[in-house]
Amino acid sequence: MKLANHVYGQWIEGAGEGTSLVDPVTGERLVTVSSEGIDLGKALAFAREQGGTALRALTYEDRAALLGKIAEVLAAHRAEYFDISLRNSGATEADAAFDVDGAIFTLKSYARAGKALGATRHLREGARVPLAKTDVFQGQHFLTPLTGVAVFINAFNFPAWGLWEKAAPALLSGVPVLVKPATPTAWLTQRMVADVVAAGILPEGALSIVCGGARELLDHVGECDVVSFTGSAETAARIRTHPRVVAKSVRVNVEADSVNAAILGPDAQPGSAEFELAVKEIVREMTIKAGQKCTAIRRVLAPVGTARALADAVAGKLAGYQVGNPRNPGVRVGPLVSRAQQVAALEGLALLKSECETVFGGGTEFAPVDADPAVSAFVQPTLLYCGKGLAAQHVHDVEVFGPVATVIPYADTAEAVALARRGRGSLVASVYSADADFLTTLVPAIADLHGRILVVDGVVGAQHTGHGNVMPSCLHGGPGRAGGGEELGGLRALGLYHRRFVVQGGGALLDVLGREAADAALLGG
Amino acid sequence: MKLANHVYGQWIEGAGEGTSLVDPVTGERLVTVSSEGIDLGKALAFAREQGGTALRALTYEDRAALLGKIAEVLAAHRAEYFDISLRNSGATEADAAFDVDGAIFTLKSYARAGKALGATRHLREGARVPLAKTDVFQGQHFLTPLTGVAVFINAFNFPAWGLWEKAAPALLSGVPVLVKPATPTAWLTQRMVADVVAAGILPEGALSIVCGGARELLDHVGECDVVSFTGSAETAARIRTHPRVVAKSVRVNVEADSVNAAILGPDAQPGSAEFELAVKEIVREMTIKAGQKCTAIRRVLAPVGTARALADAVAGKLAGYQVGNPRNPGVRVGPLVSRAQQVAALEGLALLKSECETVFGGGTEFAPVDADPAVSAFVQPTLLYCGKGLAAQHVHDVEVFGPVATVIPYADTAEAVALARRGRGSLVASVYSADADFLTTLVPAIADLHGRILVVDGVVGAQHTGHGNVMPSCLHGGPGRAGGGEELGGLRALGLYHRRFVVQGGGALLDVLGREAADAALLGG
Repeated sequence: MKLANHVYGQWIEGAGEGTSLVDPVTGERLVTVSSEGIDLGKALAFAREQGGTALRALTYEDRAALLGKIAEVLAAHRAEYFDISLRNSGATEADAAFDVDGAIFTLKSYARAGKALGATRHLREGARVPLAKTDVFQGQHFLTPLTGVAVFINAFNFPAWGLWEKAAPALLSGVPVLVKPATPTAWLTQRMVADVVAAGILPEGALSIVCGGARELLDHVGECDVVSFTGSAETAARIRTHPRVVAKSVRVNVEADSVNAAILGPDAQPGSAEFELAVKEIVREMTIKAGQKCTAIRRVLAPVGTARALADAVAGKLAGYQVGNPRNPGVRVGPLVSRAQQVAALEGLALLKSECETVFGGGTEFAPVDADPAVSAFVQPTLLYCGKGLAAQHVHDVEVFGPVATVIPYADTAEAVALARRGRGSLVASVYSADADFLTTLVPAIADLHGRILVVDGVVGAQHTGHGNVMPSCLHGGPGRAGGGEELGGLRALGLYHRRFVVQGGGALLDVLGREAADAALLGG
Repeated sequence: MKLANHVYGQWIEGAGEGTSLVDPVTGERLVTVSSEGIDLGKALAFAREQGGTALRALTYEDRAALLGKIAEVLAAHRAEYFDISLRNSGATEADAAFDVDGAIFTLKSYARAGKALGATRHLREGARVPLAKTDVFQGQHFLTPLTGVAVFINAFNFPAWGLWEKAAPALLSGVPVLVKPATPTAWLTQRMVADVVAAGILPEGALSIVCGGARELLDHVGECDVVSFTGSAETAARIRTHPRVVAKSVRVNVEADSVNAAILGPDAQPGSAEFELAVKEIVREMTIKAGQKCTAIRRVLAPVGTARALADAVAGKLAGYQVGNPRNPGVRVGPLVSRAQQVAALEGLALLKSECETVFGGGTEFAPVDADPAVSAFVQPTLLYCGKGLAAQHVHDVEVFGPVATVIPYADTAEAVALARRGRGSLVASVYSADADFLTTLVPAIADLHGRILVVDGVVGAQHTGHGNVMPSCLHGGPGRAGGGEELGGLRALGLYHRRFVVQGGGALLDVLGREAADAALLGG
């Protein structure tokens, strides 16, 4: 079966043989994708002219309701999505839930939050700016939806959530979406788009999908479009330096990989609630989705007196996890999504090992349950220990996109700060401590290099939302290595899809222009 | 005299002969500049470590007070700055005032606005985000000052204002500044920095200047720095695609040239107040600073029945303007800043003429007052008329950075909108009309492609702040061709120099972290 592309209001199969999508457990070829022969310039123009015009004719409240309907459609097809996730991504049920239920949860969250913007179509920002001695001439800032397309070039690890966490704020803003999912796992994205299109929820042109190569897509973007990319720093660089993107000052949002840290405070000693909570979260982060999350814990910073005990505790738990074919009900850790990813992860692991000792896993003897190592894409969960601190290089630079983490001891708070900052920009850090002095020193000292900081103590306990879980109401994104982008954060995310402008004029005109506007303060509220 | 660079707390002359700065009226060589031999990596590191640390130890209120003191120092040296403007830029007194007084006004504006942030050092944004069934675990967004350097690569046309309109929000944010002024007019920037450094207002490392070539400056920027550029699209592209900028996701703000429009409404008929106001503003925009403003009116869109009368009225006024040596008290229009700019402007003008008729100026017989055409850099104020509308190309694409504008008739509101949008992203459009239907159709239809829209009618009259005047309290910047950046807009401008992050944790911790924070809503207020 070849998956069709949805462009200019039509379902069109790409030309040629296409690229096969493969079951990473069995090696079975599942479906093919191709974007050959698709007129990508026409696809973007149709989205802009048909989709954008129709979406912007609706109010924020109308569009919020559409998001709710999309969530319902997706929920109705949940079982099929889990099946595709299993086959195409080797996802356990928990892995599939993380992606699929995360998508539905995010859509519902924006459906709810978007209602607050009411029956309006643009946003009025801030108070009148006095510009003359009397109020005869004033300024008023506004935000207006972009009149272009939101182009999503997405990563393979979240075919469901990766689309909808971006599409929810874009569609709510009135901006049509064209998604180019990563080829290896494009099936789930394509199926979801197909279901939503079939349900007739959105205006024509509001949601397009191109599967396979992006080809010359970026040659057709313009000054009113926005490109939102999730994936490697290499591809991010290609997008950012694309001549058309540069010439048109196209807004680009990047969420790249990062080497996120979990940090145990000096009080997180073995036996403490904070220690136990850290162990649990580290194991969860290493195993869920086989560690294939941009937000996953890659480095564990622990006081020098605690680090060995921590490593042993994590290793002890990992030993109880079965790794293999997710069709086996005992299995808790699946494969990577492809053999190519497996190769890349093992190469990265070899680099890390050159400056670490192996505490758990990492062996060549590893045999996945119910799966043939010759055709499958498994990587054994592996815990490393690196005593070199800031003198190490790879543990701070190389993200192994799989079930791999490294424990790094630190001597004092200053070293913990320096190690966390050595990630050179991360999506998230989690801190396990109830020590107020430690927290109020550490958190502000790393904040400018982290998009999110999760702080867990015994009082918060199991009620925290997780190191790697991205909540729609909280900022997702990080500086530097993490790409410098911003996603989610509730209605803040609408900023990416709006343009700010100011009108200077008489009060009566400003009254008219602002009459049917919502208050932009709601975005940051 | 060779102007010294101020780096790592020292005044250092660059090596070699340097580049001469020239009087554009007399051709006299005034001073030289050179950045050769300056350790630019060390300059940035010193600014980060000394300047940034010291600035961030102060509160917003403290730093606002410093801006006030800078304004006082500049005001005390105003006469010298006018003299340098005259000699190095060929500025008339009005031209120099536009730049120098604009700088002082902007600093004072931020000194006043910054007080509202109080004795705080970071910003708390929005309400607590509920993340658990009880309030035991919540989220709180914050903004924290960048820990890097604000690197300004500035344009030749605003050596004074161009520095301080950027430095005011950066310094107020607690971020040290390193400015690389455009070489041809670097003298005034350098003198202002020298005066402020000599006054001992700012902590060491808070303000650095490198004159001459930027050399490998960008090879040393990091994830905590921000680069703010004003100038050509070509240089903007080089900055945006610089490997280090890309690899580190360095924040880049660009303000490039644009082909801004003035638009007369259908009611702006000859004899109307709106017509007269438009004529006055067009002439002012063409002549002040000899049209060397990014915001200047380049295209004048007028109803087809009005366009000829408008062109004649503007031409009539231009005929009364003396162009020449600004040392002559009768002269109202000075030269361009350099022979190179003159050449570029005349090349652009030739392109425009290929699809326009000349209504005024543009002649080869033009003789500037009290100046030798063989050594000076004058361009005669020139008004063109283009009847080709959207079929024209150069009038919409080529910005002649001098005293040149083109009148373009339009048939109806839809065509006026299309012509304004054909600028493909502008800093500003001004509209002269009291026709509510016209305004409420046109303004929203062009808003997404304009950073600022000025609307003038008979009631507003002479109290408007001007098409080309950038008010510190209003957004400056525009999408697409205009570079996509955002500057000013009151405290909004601080956003460029802060990083957003969210802390997820217990309420008590969030209370402590937020205790000494100002409300980020003040930025958009």
